[in-house]
Amino acid sequence: MDSSTNRALPDSEVGIYECEVRLKFRIIEDQLTMTNKEELVGTLVDAFAYGSDEYLEALDSDVAIQQLHDVDEASPQMRRQLIRLRNSNRLA
Amino acid sequence: MDSSTNRALPDSEVGIYECEVRLKFRIIEDQLTMTNKEELVGTLVDAFAYGSDEYLEALDSDVAIQQLHDVDEASPQMRRQLIRLRNSNRLA
Repeated sequence: MDSSTNRALPDSEVGIYECEVRLKFRIIEDQLTMTNKEELVGTLVDAFAYGSDEYLEALDSDVAIQQLHDVDEASPQMRRQLIRLRNSNRLA
Repeated sequence: MDSSTNRALPDSEVGIYECEVRLKFRIIEDQLTMTNKEELVGTLVDAFAYGSDEYLEALDSDVAIQQLHDVDEASPQMRRQLIRLRNSNRLA
């Protein structure tokens, strides 16, 4: 392979990151039931994103991030978007 | 203690819940660095709350919830708010 086409990606190049976020908090609610997990996660994430107040107290949070090197693992939508962004960065 | 003042709390009574939410997802970013954990958690939670699109792909999420029985563990602000809500429920 020609070394000119095998250039290292610059640090600032846009990429796909795999993230794991863990949130611990207390919340005042009338009733919190586990009937629909997806809906419950959505409700709780929205509440946490709104911030701490007299209804919510953030306790602890943690985050782990790593860049996804095998881009083929990502969804087709994200792969296309990544290619679009990298191309527009190169043209800029 | 008089049994009339020692009544069981109804199921629908407002309470404080301790929540742990774990989110796994992929995100397209220019650079994600760990310089400030709190800020990074905020950014990622906002992005996740916005929903999946060509920039973000939700992978897996989990939630664990339990009611806090010892309300004294909560912040003074939340305790006051809880008392206020319970009183207004009783008057309603």
